[in-house]
Amino acid sequence: MTIRVTVWNEFRHEKDASHAASTIYPNGLHEPIASHLRQQGLEVRIATLDEPEHGLTDEVLANTDVMTWWGHMAHAEVSDAVVEKVQQRVLEGMGLIVLHSGHHSKLFKRLMGTTGNLKWREADERERIWIVEPGHPIAEGLGEYITLEAEEMYGERFDIPAPDELVFVSWFQGGEIFRSGCCWYRGRGRIFYFRPGHESYPTYHNQDVLKVIYNAVRWAAPHTIAATPVVNVKVPLETITPKESAAD
Amino acid sequence: MTIRVTVWNEFRHEKDASHAASTIYPNGLHEPIASHLRQQGLEVRIATLDEPEHGLTDEVLANTDVMTWWGHMAHAEVSDAVVEKVQQRVLEGMGLIVLHSGHHSKLFKRLMGTTGNLKWREADERERIWIVEPGHPIAEGLGEYITLEAEEMYGERFDIPAPDELVFVSWFQGGEIFRSGCCWYRGRGRIFYFRPGHESYPTYHNQDVLKVIYNAVRWAAPHTIAATPVVNVKVPLETITPKESAAD
Amino acid sequence: MTIRVTVWNEFRHEKDASHAASTIYPNGLHEPIASHLRQQGLEVRIATLDEPEHGLTDEVLANTDVMTWWGHMAHAEVSDAVVEKVQQRVLEGMGLIVLHSGHHSKLFKRLMGTTGNLKWREADERERIWIVEPGHPIAEGLGEYITLEAEEMYGERFDIPAPDELVFVSWFQGGEIFRSGCCWYRGRGRIFYFRPGHESYPTYHNQDVLKVIYNAVRWAAPHTIAATPVVNVKVPLETITPKESAAD
Amino acid sequence: MTIRVTVWNEFRHEKDASHAASTIYPNGLHEPIASHLRQQGLEVRIATLDEPEHGLTDEVLANTDVMTWWGHMAHAEVSDAVVEKVQQRVLEGMGLIVLHSGHHSKLFKRLMGTTGNLKWREADERERIWIVEPGHPIAEGLGEYITLEAEEMYGERFDIPAPDELVFVSWFQGGEIFRSGCCWYRGRGRIFYFRPGHESYPTYHNQDVLKVIYNAVRWAAPHTIAATPVVNVKVPLETITPKESAAD
Repeated sequence: MTIRVTVWNEFRHEKDASHAASTIYPNGLHEPIASHLRQQGLEVRIATLDEPEHGLTDEVLANTDVMTWWGHMAHAEVSDAVVEKVQQRVLEGMGLIVLHSGHHSKLFKRLMGTTGNLKWREADERERIWIVEPGHPIAEGLGEYITLEAEEMYGERFDIPAPDELVFVSWFQGGEIFRSGCCWYRGRGRIFYFRPGHESYPTYHNQDVLKVIYNAVRWAAPHTIAATPVVNVKVPLETITPKESAAD
Repeated sequence: MTIRVTVWNEFRHEKDASHAASTIYPNGLHEPIASHLRQQGLEVRIATLDEPEHGLTDEVLANTDVMTWWGHMAHAEVSDAVVEKVQQRVLEGMGLIVLHSGHHSKLFKRLMGTTGNLKWREADERERIWIVEPGHPIAEGLGEYITLEAEEMYGERFDIPAPDELVFVSWFQGGEIFRSGCCWYRGRGRIFYFRPGHESYPTYHNQDVLKVIYNAVRWAAPHTIAATPVVNVKVPLETITPKESAAD
Repeated sequence: MTIRVTVWNEFRHEKDASHAASTIYPNGLHEPIASHLRQQGLEVRIATLDEPEHGLTDEVLANTDVMTWWGHMAHAEVSDAVVEKVQQRVLEGMGLIVLHSGHHSKLFKRLMGTTGNLKWREADERERIWIVEPGHPIAEGLGEYITLEAEEMYGERFDIPAPDELVFVSWFQGGEIFRSGCCWYRGRGRIFYFRPGHESYPTYHNQDVLKVIYNAVRWAAPHTIAATPVVNVKVPLETITPKESAAD
Repeated sequence: MTIRVTVWNEFRHEKDASHAASTIYPNGLHEPIASHLRQQGLEVRIATLDEPEHGLTDEVLANTDVMTWWGHMAHAEVSDAVVEKVQQRVLEGMGLIVLHSGHHSKLFKRLMGTTGNLKWREADERERIWIVEPGHPIAEGLGEYITLEAEEMYGERFDIPAPDELVFVSWFQGGEIFRSGCCWYRGRGRIFYFRPGHESYPTYHNQDVLKVIYNAVRWAAPHTIAATPVVNVKVPLETITPKESAAD
């Protein structure tokens, strides 16, 4: 079965001709991501903030196995109703890949239960992403680390639940470290947070970064999607006998 | 330092003279809990749903190290503003012990990011709570299991994030099992969910149940309470040098 | 790439004509397991205790992606040299599925660092294996639980490291529970322990049990196999400057 | 109850007058550790490799709540019998703090089940130990990070099971990162690995490093020490009835 991916992008910085992002990602930073996933044979759809329902209609959600999410300046404009629907879909099994500044999205904060706060700095500094779990499916095909010559810094303390699987930790030239590749299981869904991707750097043109996103999509793809209901089990599976018939 | 505990109770069932809870817990089910914690030397305050701000003013929150939470029929009446404040306090370090039907409280669902859904049955059946991590501080002073001769059944699948530490698993006579003692770390705070405590059974008069709650309060007590801010670290800790000066 | 599986079996009970196992599994309990995996298209090899090197030569290990392990009465006869080699191969990435009484094998105890001790009883009692993580790959295609009408009981406390992922918990008619489907990551390898499979019951003829083993093999298959060496990194990746040149 | 600590040290480098350790730690690197723990009111005993039974007699083990372990050049000289006894004691509940090069000790490798391999470099470089879980008991009283102006580098991939709680991650000037404060639960025991402490640097005179060791000792202290036996539970807790009497 072909994995069906929805690449969601806020798509605002790139439309501002005065912003570096408009040059680096003239068609939106979702384009290199979507293009790479299509080349790998996945079925890819794009959705953006300024579409009706942010492009995330019930029909789109019903046909999405894994969603990627990039947002930054307009987190507050994402409607609560859409966030609620996407969260429910993740709990039912849809995979979710949260990218970079998506750490402060309503969606990520609701799924984590924490603030997503962190330290940051824009100083064109080197990031080295170390693979601490080389056997993990998301690390497939990578070397010992990925070097990005210039990126925004994110530093600890990153206010997240301890990841269920910690795959990457970043080193920054200015002296900080960051848990930059984190897996969580929520409901039936799998969530991966991947740190790099500031809009003013060509990070989503980096082949290793794209490989990680592809690996993460495959890791997060569900085998089935189903809600976990509340059930009143009136008829027990076993006969319930009063105390005196038991051994203790 | 004496641990300061706020025992929060919805306190509705017990005021209904036609409900078994009014006989089992004439002064509210918070009373045996509060009384036990006081006997152990803790400083205990009580707060209930029908007080102004549900009894959870800024002053109360500022002076609470650990909160216990029992709610059932009126989860929807808890104000979002209070839930928001309590959640923030947990992330800053306040311990939280969620009891029984509190699994569906707004507070628990927000901190977990999941629905808290589960199976249930009222059939006066036996529950045996097995200790699967006997070395855990919350298991101090317990035997191999706790038997409750009659309780409501809660069954899997329980829609929670996999606990960071799973201390208890319950066996039910009718054929189900349940992860009934679960620890999570969120922000700087520690959260413990403890399953038993249906309002129509005398569970909170059981000495082992009270011992677990006391152990959990001690385990969840913070060493410091502090927010995790967003910080723009303009001055780096280390000198940032351009690419050509580095080895790779 | 076809997954290459080695199904390892102690293969002693089945050769004893007075033992029930000789009737239930006339060709060894490895046969229904191997047969099922072959039907699913995997490449399967069998190895048993009484072969030279227990059937686990360097050549076999070099060509195994995932190994399943069943042992019981003769754990002590497995040579330390073979255990050492298999452990190293797991750390390099080979998947390992440990079945039932394999909890006391030298191999499992070395990989866990614990005793593997537990409670047990042979009383032809019902086991109900509850799926607590229905979204997990090992739960694919299963319902809410698997019922085995008669099995040996294993009860907590099971002396294992808390599993990295807990997929199944068993209910037993006699009053116990057990963490019966447990995942661990060790080195680059993935390990799954699956409880059922006492030799005097036809458990390995049960289709759901076989499905779990197949799912587990797929989950445990590595993407690459490689050792983690000790490396003296004499030339640093970055220029190391003395204290006075840094900001702090 | 006063916590009873045994500070174990290989104590070889310090006796070599040509080695820097003999100047930095003239009485052994165990001395500043033991001295600090005593000042905090703990009951401290010292044991070293060259004593009979390495100073770890049954009597010493029976009276130890938490052990700290530093070894480096003579791991192979530690007798298997002593390692076996100490491992069993940890599984029964004794806390264990493994320091620096103890990552390659027989004891640590047996408890982890992995090789403990890593990268290393001696280049007098700066280490900055970031606290990623500030709410953890082992982080009590620390700031955001600890700076050590000169230390040996340890780098990933560190071949350990993913820690149950990751408290510290180190940044190194030469470009590496390392999971440098790791908690595991094994049996009833608690294990903490703490990275810094190369013998040619005055690391164990650093007040923050000593504070971490003290915090870790308190965190690892057991509430009870007891083995987990194998038990044949011949008499079930509940009446076992044949299939036809049950609901399914």
